[in-house]
Amino acid sequence: DWRHRGRAHIICYVTLKWSLCFLIGALAGAVGFFNNLAVENIAGFKFVVTSNLMLAKKYAWAFGVFAGSNFVLAMFASVLTAYIAPAAAGSGIPEVKAYLNGIDAPDLFSLRTLVVKVVGCIAAVSSSLHAGKAGPMVHAGACIASTLGQGGSGKYHLSCKWPRYFRNDRDRRELVTCGAGAGIAAALRAPVGGVLFALESVSSWWNSALLWKAFFTTAVVGVVLRALIDICNGGKCGLFGKGELIMFDVTSDTIAYHLADLPPVILLGVIGGLLGSFYNFLLEKVLRIYNLIHEKGIGYELLLAATVSILTSCCLFGLPWLASCRPCPGGLSEVCPSIGSGFGIFKKFQCPPHHYNDLASLLFNTNDGTIRNLFSAGTDAVFQKSSMLLFFAASYFLGIVSYGLVAPAGLFVPLILTGAAYGRLVGMLVGKHSTLDHGLFAVLGSASVLGGSMRMTLSVCVIILELTNNLLLLPLVMLVLLISKTVADTFNANIYDMMVKLKGLPYLDAHAEPYMRQLTVSDVLTGPLQIFNGVEKVGNIVHVLKTTGHHGFPVVDGPPFSSSPVLFGLILRAHLLVLLKKKEFLHACTLSGVDASKQFSADDFAKRGSGRCDSIEDIELTGEEMETCIDLHPFTNTSPHTVVETMSLAKALILFREVGLRHLLVVPKSSSSPPVVGMLTRHDFMPEHILGLYPLLLKSRWKRSESPLLLK
Amino acid sequence: DWRHRGRAHIICYVTLKWSLCFLIGALAGAVGFFNNLAVENIAGFKFVVTSNLMLAKKYAWAFGVFAGSNFVLAMFASVLTAYIAPAAAGSGIPEVKAYLNGIDAPDLFSLRTLVVKVVGCIAAVSSSLHAGKAGPMVHAGACIASTLGQGGSGKYHLSCKWPRYFRNDRDRRELVTCGAGAGIAAALRAPVGGVLFALESVSSWWNSALLWKAFFTTAVVGVVLRALIDICNGGKCGLFGKGELIMFDVTSDTIAYHLADLPPVILLGVIGGLLGSFYNFLLEKVLRIYNLIHEKGIGYELLLAATVSILTSCCLFGLPWLASCRPCPGGLSEVCPSIGSGFGIFKKFQCPPHHYNDLASLLFNTNDGTIRNLFSAGTDAVFQKSSMLLFFAASYFLGIVSYGLVAPAGLFVPLILTGAAYGRLVGMLVGKHSTLDHGLFAVLGSASVLGGSMRMTLSVCVIILELTNNLLLLPLVMLVLLISKTVADTFNANIYDMMVKLKGLPYLDAHAEPYMRQLTVSDVLTGPLQIFNGVEKVGNIVHVLKTTGHHGFPVVDGPPFSSSPVLFGLILRAHLLVLLKKKEFLHACTLSGVDASKQFSADDFAKRGSGRCDSIEDIELTGEEMETCIDLHPFTNTSPHTVVETMSLAKALILFREVGLRHLLVVPKSSSSPPVVGMLTRHDFMPEHILGLYPLLLKSRWKRSESPLLLK
Repeated sequence: DWRHRGRAHIICYVTLKWSLCFLIGALAGAVGFFNNLAVENIAGFKFVVTSNLMLAKKYAWAFGVFAGSNFVLAMFASVLTAYIAPAAAGSGIPEVKAYLNGIDAPDLFSLRTLVVKVVGCIAAVSSSLHAGKAGPMVHAGACIASTLGQGGSGKYHLSCKWPRYFRNDRDRRELVTCGAGAGIAAALRAPVGGVLFALESVSSWWNSALLWKAFFTTAVVGVVLRALIDICNGGKCGLFGKGELIMFDVTSDTIAYHLADLPPVILLGVIGGLLGSFYNFLLEKVLRIYNLIHEKGIGYELLLAATVSILTSCCLFGLPWLASCRPCPGGLSEVCPSIGSGFGIFKKFQCPPHHYNDLASLLFNTNDGTIRNLFSAGTDAVFQKSSMLLFFAASYFLGIVSYGLVAPAGLFVPLILTGAAYGRLVGMLVGKHSTLDHGLFAVLGSASVLGGSMRMTLSVCVIILELTNNLLLLPLVMLVLLISKTVADTFNANIYDMMVKLKGLPYLDAHAEPYMRQLTVSDVLTGPLQIFNGVEKVGNIVHVLKTTGHHGFPVVDGPPFSSSPVLFGLILRAHLLVLLKKKEFLHACTLSGVDASKQFSADDFAKRGSGRCDSIEDIELTGEEMETCIDLHPFTNTSPHTVVETMSLAKALILFREVGLRHLLVVPKSSSSPPVVGMLTRHDFMPEHILGLYPLLLKSRWKRSESPLLLK
Repeated sequence: DWRHRGRAHIICYVTLKWSLCFLIGALAGAVGFFNNLAVENIAGFKFVVTSNLMLAKKYAWAFGVFAGSNFVLAMFASVLTAYIAPAAAGSGIPEVKAYLNGIDAPDLFSLRTLVVKVVGCIAAVSSSLHAGKAGPMVHAGACIASTLGQGGSGKYHLSCKWPRYFRNDRDRRELVTCGAGAGIAAALRAPVGGVLFALESVSSWWNSALLWKAFFTTAVVGVVLRALIDICNGGKCGLFGKGELIMFDVTSDTIAYHLADLPPVILLGVIGGLLGSFYNFLLEKVLRIYNLIHEKGIGYELLLAATVSILTSCCLFGLPWLASCRPCPGGLSEVCPSIGSGFGIFKKFQCPPHHYNDLASLLFNTNDGTIRNLFSAGTDAVFQKSSMLLFFAASYFLGIVSYGLVAPAGLFVPLILTGAAYGRLVGMLVGKHSTLDHGLFAVLGSASVLGGSMRMTLSVCVIILELTNNLLLLPLVMLVLLISKTVADTFNANIYDMMVKLKGLPYLDAHAEPYMRQLTVSDVLTGPLQIFNGVEKVGNIVHVLKTTGHHGFPVVDGPPFSSSPVLFGLILRAHLLVLLKKKEFLHACTLSGVDASKQFSADDFAKRGSGRCDSIEDIELTGEEMETCIDLHPFTNTSPHTVVETMSLAKALILFREVGLRHLLVVPKSSSSPPVVGMLTRHDFMPEHILGLYPLLLKSRWKRSESPLLLK
């Protein structure tokens, strides 16, 4: 146990941890900024070239350049992900969430994943795929945190020695939480929202010290972003302009609302909840189909990505032709029609001079530009109903088909886009019955769809406020979020839980299912329990490790050493493997009396980074060695958590989850039994396992998926 | 166990719970609004009368009216609190925090406490005592939640039947958490800040369902406040004006900052941290002295309150005479000098026409008005350095001496005031070296002193943002908070922990002290363990209950019923008392076979509101009855949490705290011992208890108070 140290070590540990948080924040901020800069410049260049061709009326050429560059970028992202780091596909938020719940996945946070995630995300977003950058940034932030916590990647000889303090589950989990928060903070420039996001929807354990560290990390992100933007203000960032990221200013002067505006807002929330839960439903179906395709091999994966890329290009380039050209309104501060890329709201597209195409302003633009256009106040007359409806439909549809591709892609931005279009549409339909600005409707629409799909409340609320920089919106945003989440909760679970389940990860919920109250822990124990003696034969250990897949074994001292069996503790497979590798065996099977701390240092037992587990097959032992013994006492955890066999399964689950355990020993209620009667692991708490043992429970089960609201 | 129910019951439970949250939010919002309305009108009327007398140059009369009304109001608050509900004194936040940690206190949340808290707080704040309304509102919110959860107060025959679902610790704790959040939200009009405050500094347990409920509650508060303000906009609220509460508008246009502004901001944070921790240090000393005075009786308490009230009146009325009159600047939209009450920044006080007294603008004003004046942008030239220094000193000093009085009083507003004055002072001293507005300096100063004293980060940050309605401040506020908290943490603990300790409440920290790692749970077990048999003699039970003060007893089945002793579960004192009261005894000491659920309903065992415990002395039993038996099996909790005796004390503490236990059974490691060897309660984990048993540990103890930062 590495905590048996002096004061100097503790100071060193704390200093290092805070420095790590600082580094995580600084790196995440820099990566987020670089990400935006790259996307705006690559996509911007593409739009400039295409627009210039359009201006010269070379429409076929324009489409060719547009679709071609999109195709190349999308395929680049897909090939990179598929061949180099498959773990980098998708948004990564479900994986991070599962990791923080205690599920280790190989290669999830490697340096390779990080690089592919960042580069792939830039390419995917630049390729006009309907994909966001927030999810990948969360994963990237977690990768940065984990890699720094490891002291670099061992594989590429970049590792250094100092972070030996952080090679344990708890510290790594805390760093990853900070990293995830920093990711959202960097992607959306929402430091407080980032902390709340990490708290509300990613993390499974939380304490105030961690809150404080996460807050520090995101504050660093905020400062770094601000400093980098100061550089961009000098005009050195190319097409990125002044580097405003997505910071929408619905100016506060224009916003005033009264009780009379409540009915449309409530309606907005209800329909938004329906749209959000239907989005989840459709996405799950599409992901199931995509999973079938992906199982057929990388070729099919790439083919799928290519198809979606071409489809997207066709949609984005083709749909604006359906919208009619509108004359530019007079008395504008902006150029109309704007030529080239940028955030201009009046796109010329195919229109004659002094006319603009409102659908092109939305479709033929970067995501950030579109969101800015939709959220702008005082633009009620700019868009037509038909255009907005078309954009909404396209956005809803493209968001669903684009997510499951092999490239890194997030869900946040597509949902914001879809919601904003939906909100504006509602605003247009309500028309004169409400005094609210359509830009405000767009903001509320985004909130409602996000709430309906992701079911986050506090964090989405704060993120929306930080994006729009307007606190007067607060009551309306809260109202919309509450309504849409409540409506959506009656239909299905939130999108991340749905994906975690789809990936088959053994995610442990924070609450017990009702039928678990009817069972005791001894009801779900399966299989024979493997127990080691305090001094155990090497041959025995090797045999057990080879024949079982368990990760922990109780150690019980038997008759030679004590009169009756005594529970000594729990030993981990990983530690046994270290012992077997070192080959410091005893020839007589007695207590060794050797000071183990001289033979081994704490580093030997430190947990390695993900994906680098030893295996029992790698250790070769001679027949003679098999007959020797190991004294397990010094290496056993003498403080295992225990429950009595009559403990209710529901209470055991709460204990397991709240304390964050991996193994839970079951002790007998009676003193005539052996001192340990079983062991519970994560898998024993999975509904699938329990219902497999007791199929009859299924009948009396109140299905959670039907009404998740009930158990909250 | 009331959860063994059908689906209809669960739906009913959930609906009721959400309705309760709604009611809590609505009531807390209404109370908060009423509170503000009353304070502004009472204090405003006082200032109008006094100002009119000043205008007529009747200075002695003015002082008489001012000091007299202050005295009457302060004494009213003190007498009310001292005689009717002593639990309502102070801010109440430490008590709420201790309650949520698991410490029941009698009468803490009664209806009487609520009424006294609200009325007393209005009187205390109106009396110009340097006291805030945020802390009392937190306590009031918690009272509302608890009282509603009880279905009203039983004492005044207001109770109703439906809330039987909520008569258990867990639900009551959740409701109180929501209530505390609603209190802050109502007091400061900061819904998100309220949730975060409840999360960060009040609550000990948290989960996402609770987050979601707390968010709903504070959203209701926001909507209710907004609706009530709409009424005030019609001008029907008397001197309350437009009912803006404290919503400061530092207009965003005036704020621009660059890297060059960082040094003064960092300096501000460092000194703010020092000031904050010194504030805590002084406050603790003063509270110790006050405690000595309070012990002497109510008369001394009231005398102390009277002294402080007169002292405050003298300060507020006397100090402005030291400031020189300044001519009104030209070209103002405001009236100068303003006459009467209100938020005018130019107070006439004793000055000749067209002159104003800047110190009077700060001292001779309501707290909200002063904060507004200090936070206003574009008022750099209004105040003089000497006035600001005087105001800062007075505010720092008065805040410390006013808190420990018997009246309800909070700390938030005094700290904001002190910090704002300190920030402006720094702004004036920095002068031309910074381009930042002095109003902004005031906001940052408030943040730094709050961070230094309360050590909250996220919630203070969000509260400040919600108060100022300006998100552009975010990076600066975060920076200042981080610095000031870090600086202050090196000196002492946060103000609420300090008060909890001072009150001697057994608060359980979320982390273990280092020396606890060296002990096992069996090291701290004390005293003989009282065990009951499954079927126990009434006489035995009565004897044990009379001779011990324990609240829980293990139940072990002995030889007549099983071959070897078997741990059956844990029974609570409260449940034993219910059994003894019902007198359904068995004449033969065998298993009863009677269906206990027919004799008793779950309501019999439901936990009563605070302060209404039965006592063993109230139950009278005949000698014959003493010889009969009770079958304890149906009433025993068969799922007690357990630890093995070799478990590390530190790990047991984490388990105890994370799962939120009251009793933890210690089971033996060996199978030859009795099935339970001891029981741990909250008191066994208190450092005082452990260090009492092992005084030598004190030497090797790394004192937490010296460096709390280290263990975070």
